[in-house]
Amino acid sequence: MGKERLYLYDTTLRDGQQTQGVQFSVAEKLRIAAALDALGVDYIEGGWPGANPTDSGFFDAVGATRARMTAFGMTKRAGRSAENDDVLAAVLDAGTGVVCLVGKAHEFHVTTALGITLDENVENIRASVAHCVASGREALLDAEHFFDGYRAHPAYALECLHAALGAGARWVVLCDTNGGSLPSDIGRSVSEVIAAGVPGDRLGIHTHNDTEMAVACTLAAVDAGVRQVQGTLNGLGERCGNANLVSLIPTLLLKAPYAERFEIGVSLDGLAGLTRLSRMLDDILNRVPMKQMPYVGGSAFTHKAGLHASAILKDPTTYEHIDPGLVGNRRFVPMSNQAGQSNLRRRLAEAGIEVAPGDPALGRILDVVKARESEGYSYDTAEASFELLARAELGRLPEFFEVKRYRVTVERRKNKRNKVVSLSEAVVVVKVDGVKTLSVSESMDESGSDRGPVNALSKALSKDLGRYQAMIEDLRLVDFKVRITQGGTEAVTRVIIDSEDGQGRRWSTVGVSANIVDASFEALLDAVRWKLVRDCGDGA
Amino acid sequence: MGKERLYLYDTTLRDGQQTQGVQFSVAEKLRIAAALDALGVDYIEGGWPGANPTDSGFFDAVGATRARMTAFGMTKRAGRSAENDDVLAAVLDAGTGVVCLVGKAHEFHVTTALGITLDENVENIRASVAHCVASGREALLDAEHFFDGYRAHPAYALECLHAALGAGARWVVLCDTNGGSLPSDIGRSVSEVIAAGVPGDRLGIHTHNDTEMAVACTLAAVDAGVRQVQGTLNGLGERCGNANLVSLIPTLLLKAPYAERFEIGVSLDGLAGLTRLSRMLDDILNRVPMKQMPYVGGSAFTHKAGLHASAILKDPTTYEHIDPGLVGNRRFVPMSNQAGQSNLRRRLAEAGIEVAPGDPALGRILDVVKARESEGYSYDTAEASFELLARAELGRLPEFFEVKRYRVTVERRKNKRNKVVSLSEAVVVVKVDGVKTLSVSESMDESGSDRGPVNALSKALSKDLGRYQAMIEDLRLVDFKVRITQGGTEAVTRVIIDSEDGQGRRWSTVGVSANIVDASFEALLDAVRWKLVRDCGDGA
Repeated sequence: MGKERLYLYDTTLRDGQQTQGVQFSVAEKLRIAAALDALGVDYIEGGWPGANPTDSGFFDAVGATRARMTAFGMTKRAGRSAENDDVLAAVLDAGTGVVCLVGKAHEFHVTTALGITLDENVENIRASVAHCVASGREALLDAEHFFDGYRAHPAYALECLHAALGAGARWVVLCDTNGGSLPSDIGRSVSEVIAAGVPGDRLGIHTHNDTEMAVACTLAAVDAGVRQVQGTLNGLGERCGNANLVSLIPTLLLKAPYAERFEIGVSLDGLAGLTRLSRMLDDILNRVPMKQMPYVGGSAFTHKAGLHASAILKDPTTYEHIDPGLVGNRRFVPMSNQAGQSNLRRRLAEAGIEVAPGDPALGRILDVVKARESEGYSYDTAEASFELLARAELGRLPEFFEVKRYRVTVERRKNKRNKVVSLSEAVVVVKVDGVKTLSVSESMDESGSDRGPVNALSKALSKDLGRYQAMIEDLRLVDFKVRITQGGTEAVTRVIIDSEDGQGRRWSTVGVSANIVDASFEALLDAVRWKLVRDCGDGA
Repeated sequence: MGKERLYLYDTTLRDGQQTQGVQFSVAEKLRIAAALDALGVDYIEGGWPGANPTDSGFFDAVGATRARMTAFGMTKRAGRSAENDDVLAAVLDAGTGVVCLVGKAHEFHVTTALGITLDENVENIRASVAHCVASGREALLDAEHFFDGYRAHPAYALECLHAALGAGARWVVLCDTNGGSLPSDIGRSVSEVIAAGVPGDRLGIHTHNDTEMAVACTLAAVDAGVRQVQGTLNGLGERCGNANLVSLIPTLLLKAPYAERFEIGVSLDGLAGLTRLSRMLDDILNRVPMKQMPYVGGSAFTHKAGLHASAILKDPTTYEHIDPGLVGNRRFVPMSNQAGQSNLRRRLAEAGIEVAPGDPALGRILDVVKARESEGYSYDTAEASFELLARAELGRLPEFFEVKRYRVTVERRKNKRNKVVSLSEAVVVVKVDGVKTLSVSESMDESGSDRGPVNALSKALSKDLGRYQAMIEDLRLVDFKVRITQGGTEAVTRVIIDSEDGQGRRWSTVGVSANIVDASFEALLDAVRWKLVRDCGDGA
């Protein structure tokens, strides 16, 4: 017997944007949509056109995708026709092939929140879906508060579903809007809905994590027969978030009974990119990735307990429920032991640095990494700084130049027209081949805007490095990330800088200090030094 | 019919300490144990005496508790008697009333990880439990890898349980050590174990969050009959963590069928302290509390979506699965470009600013918020800056003082001993009541460490504000968050500052600029101005 198709519907760009503190730009939405498309989800809900300028901008800008691009909106209001509802019109104007409309399925909400009659609500659902279908779209109904509504008034909740299906909706999605339902509630209700005549392959599930069970509630619904799963990357979403697709996808692909029973649009290749995708989203949000995230977290395959770590060396399956490589994650066994050293040698070899097994420098490098990480450094992303650190311990890092001192000033004052203006100036003194050079730069960009002290410092540092100057002319800062982290007992600032050169190389460096300018300078210095190692070799 | 007793077993101090990066001091363990005892858990697993000096220190120091204090260890090794096993002796030496021993229940682990015979392992379990019981202790067996073992070799897994029970163990705890089992697997296995003659009131459940279902797996086991639940505060624990008691406890106390069916040691009073307890643990760990945490997170009752926010105004039960006060949390309706005027009036009323419906200032405020958010500001969290913005539009923000200019220098140089040192100095010029004052500060803290330019600027700004000076003496910066975000076409820096005063008020302000020092200064200024509004009122 063939596998049944289970559809994945991503709402990171819509419900995910309801997360407190999250507001995607159009460019960020486009980047996330491209990643979701590459992953293999079936539907991408891009936002609510008309309700939010960014969402409208996204639909204007997005190109063709393999996934079905979906616009979200709400059913028409009472007292006007679907054709004359301007909110609904704005949704259709986005021109997507799929439209998902939220409509209420709970009597209490119809009368309390909307203040209309029960029949008016059913008619709003019917007419809105019919209007979408008539304009050639695939239509979905998000049946809001379905589970609470079904418990209170099952006949009315079912009537809302049938209204949508009767009008031609491809899917009706059962939403646990308030997130209070337990998996057993959801499984039972879904079974009853299917028994009442709604086919499972027309049903979707949309859960929230308010009891920490969004993933389990989703699987309970799948067990009971729904064939579309809604969720978000990293479990973003209103309040405690939506069902986390990053947890659901590996479970569906790798674990019984799902792997044997269902086919989803994500391949094993797509699955191997999952950790990178999850981190990319955190990167866009400038969040520190949660180490404890299932499957993709930095701790998900970290074996801290002594008994576990020693068993892992004998056979990794002793304490791992899946092979971390399947989701693009990796095993981490605390650095002090043998597994730490062979892992280190592999990382160095990847950077072109061959070290013999048992070289005492390996132990020293691990010690330095450990000490630095406890100060707030992070070498997971800053591979270039890690390489420089290892080279220093191995005696393979030439001292290309020495920074004697720097000084940056930041000034803000009102000018003659009483307008507040600011300006930074940086002076950097470097010694190259025994010659001291003093360079100065200011923070204005080509358009006359102040870009701040780090910009001034970066320009002054790379202004005159003597015989190395030609090698850094094509060095360009492409990203600058700042995080406050914990080093010892005090909060410190961690700066990560991404750089690029004319040959298309891209590398990341890190600096840590209580002083943000110092942290930035350290990362800048590493960026320059890494580029010089690449261009000169380690013989300088 | 009376309720059945369900027991809570906390392992924050033992399995929770296996979290990557977590290492409790004795003092911290004592503080957490006292809080757990006040909450009403039945068992507190304090650590593994002998294996970890901190754990031994904790058992030496801890006094009498209402909860049963439990020492953790492992079953004796093969080839020696229980009486002569020094590891087991160290566990008993802690003198606790309860001892929990981990023993393997999976053939593969017995032969691969331990390298002993299956019979030897069963005998190790039997003899170790018998030895604990003979020395007057309540004994538990943590049956490691139980679910994987039961799937592979059910008879052997059951034999291990029976060996412990036959030797007098009060509980055998079914552990999903690798965290890979799904709720349906666990429910089915528990049912079979009970059918095989192990009473549910002798069974515990211990799950991990590797598929994001530790809480659901725990409840599946309870549904199937186990009567002891193991977990940790905030879901700390090896890899992705253990079952989160902070999520389980409210579900057990407030939701059907658990609330009606079971009695637990936590009262409704204890439940009301849950949010504070969860934050206390984050405080001890120096972690930023996760906003999306179920029940206790800062976002758990935050209603960002416009439709939700307006319904909440009519009736909070429309979008809340429980009353947030029951767990000591609270409702929050943030300002954002997705919310409307009624939401805005309510936010202002909460800040003590009454505005008549239809006041044209409401529209202006929403426009300013929208424009600012597109520049990179975020008022979801920075409520104090939002209030100041609204006051400015309403003409209710006194100009307490004017900043004429500031200047900050950041210097780094090698000192006479060739050690790199850095120092920042800030000069701020303010005008208060027509009098210009020039204040200067440097960035050294009490210990002589450089805290950077923002620290110097903050101290200079709050050094002399004339007649307002007394009001800001108790103002303290408690957190400082930096994000790089997109404002228009260029990356800009967003700084959010959390401040606190002597009356325990806590507020957040925001600043945005391409220049990180400017962005920080703007947030600092708002922090001071908000405090002055609170202390002076808006008549200044």
